Amino acid sequence: MNYQEALPLITKKIAEISYPKQPKELYEPMIYLLSMKGKRIRPIFTLMACRLFQENIKCAIDVALAWEIFHNFTLMHDDIIDNAFLRRGQSTVHTKWNKTIALLAGDSMLILAYKYIAKSPLQYRDILLHLFSSIAAKVCEGQAYDMLLENRLDVRKKEYLELVRLKTATLLSACLYSGAIVGGASGQDAKFLQDFGINLGIAFQIQDDMLDVYGNSSFGKEIGSDIFSNRRTYLLINALNICDEMERKELLFWLNEKEQKEEKITAIISLYDKMEIKKKTCRTIESYYRRALFSLKKVNVEEEKKVDLVELTKELMNRTS
Amino acid sequence: MNYQEALPLITKKIAEISYPKQPKELYEPMIYLLSMKGKRIRPIFTLMACRLFQENIKCAIDVALAWEIFHNFTLMHDDIIDNAFLRRGQSTVHTKWNKTIALLAGDSMLILAYKYIAKSPLQYRDILLHLFSSIAAKVCEGQAYDMLLENRLDVRKKEYLELVRLKTATLLSACLYSGAIVGGASGQDAKFLQDFGINLGIAFQIQDDMLDVYGNSSFGKEIGSDIFSNRRTYLLINALNICDEMERKELLFWLNEKEQKEEKITAIISLYDKMEIKKKTCRTIESYYRRALFSLKKVNVEEEKKVDLVELTKELMNRTS
Repeated sequence: MNYQEALPLITKKIAEISYPKQPKELYEPMIYLLSMKGKRIRPIFTLMACRLFQENIKCAIDVALAWEIFHNFTLMHDDIIDNAFLRRGQSTVHTKWNKTIALLAGDSMLILAYKYIAKSPLQYRDILLHLFSSIAAKVCEGQAYDMLLENRLDVRKKEYLELVRLKTATLLSACLYSGAIVGGASGQDAKFLQDFGINLGIAFQIQDDMLDVYGNSSFGKEIGSDIFSNRRTYLLINALNICDEMERKELLFWLNEKEQKEEKITAIISLYDKMEIKKKTCRTIESYYRRALFSLKKVNVEEEKKVDLVELTKELMNRTS
Repeated sequence: MNYQEALPLITKKIAEISYPKQPKELYEPMIYLLSMKGKRIRPIFTLMACRLFQENIKCAIDVALAWEIFHNFTLMHDDIIDNAFLRRGQSTVHTKWNKTIALLAGDSMLILAYKYIAKSPLQYRDILLHLFSSIAAKVCEGQAYDMLLENRLDVRKKEYLELVRLKTATLLSACLYSGAIVGGASGQDAKFLQDFGINLGIAFQIQDDMLDVYGNSSFGKEIGSDIFSNRRTYLLINALNICDEMERKELLFWLNEKEQKEEKITAIISLYDKMEIKKKTCRTIESYYRRALFSLKKVNVEEEKKVDLVELTKELMNRTS
């Protein structure tokens, strides 16, 4: 099952989720957010991981949905925290409705995700329930770290990577791990897929950081918005770590600039260029990507079965927005 | 096991919950809120319901803790929604820290509650997991209804009761039901305890509404704060439902008053007195309380075993703040 087959399946399953009719002010925002066009990478990874070990992926669908719903729960609450106006080019829930609604609908989505975990195959339910709670707790920790790093200028690469591991990579890796588990994988193979996911997740996040600066401005995302908001990206942390005294002065000057958006973005990009941040970042992404593929290689399954997973990964690594 | 024995046990178990050390900005608020002195009625009801059916209540402790943690999760997010400054006489989490922290620590508490459900006895875990998710979803629905009724003047008693059922009574009833289940109760007895909880929960909430007006001003709560904030209480809804045209005009006048606090509270209380709202409310509370006791009576267990539950209920019904 390749990505082109998996995407409509997940889309269909999401559309089939049944919600109570009332209060519609609580359930409409959930439907609204979950129906937005997205890549659905997380549930598709779950299905693909399952597929490595068995033909019939039916047993993985509820778990896959749980991850997608959970991911959307984090988006709903993140958008409140960041006071974001747009999500995938559309109004965020708290903008379209209000913050109370977004808070409660988010809570309800987390509960809905648990309902799907509770529908997973009985023999794996316990292990999946533990996994789910442990990952969910880590993602919240990641969010909290994110807030804590926000105004610090001395963030170390190690801290950034720990944050990315908690916020992004563990979730991706759990999607793969749980798919393998319900597919009947050995503990060792599931573990290899978990490692694959961790490294891939880190590669993705750093790439996300890079696309904010060096990506296409399609897909509803402006170029340089991370720069303007001083987000602690891999690029900024790298720049702050390797700059000389003059460059540091210039960087700090622009970090303090809150008004001149275009000028700030242009100036910081030219600093990045001078410091060869793009090249360095690409090298790091490449290295995590290679580590990911190395872990996938170790999964004890014929290589041809891995083609869909490899293809999807490659495509995601080559995206430009 | 009576209330005086149960309270220190629950307090001890809450103090023994282990949290990750980092990030402390996420876990300290959880510990802060959970350590506040409270009546701990929900977990104690779980233990007492279990005790009706077996001597050893060890099997009920994790479930009891799950309900208390869940309850505190709702308080954490409620306080954000209501922009409340005080909780049990102390600063709310979002006041002491900030709203992002309160949001994330709330999310983490919901996840922690699920972790405790996942520790419940294996043979009942599935049923408890389903129960927990279903109750949690209902409580969120209740919160949403609460928001929706906020500015309406035409709230019917039926809507108010539905709200109370969702926001308060189902949780209390689930605490009792789950305790009975892990204690090995028959389906029928568990159901009777559930009915006991629903009716008791409604009685409690209406009583809460009444104590805002006719209670003692101790326990960190001001008299009349519901009146000043126009909260749709049983008293207000009742008054709006039975008032004549003159009384309605006066009520609406004071509902529109946002500044003169003392005058507003005094005026509305005197309207309540004129309409005999207190007497009518007491009668309703009494009726739900009687229905609750009637359900408890039907539980197929010697009456002497029910003494602790009856005593606690009686004490709660006689509270003045």
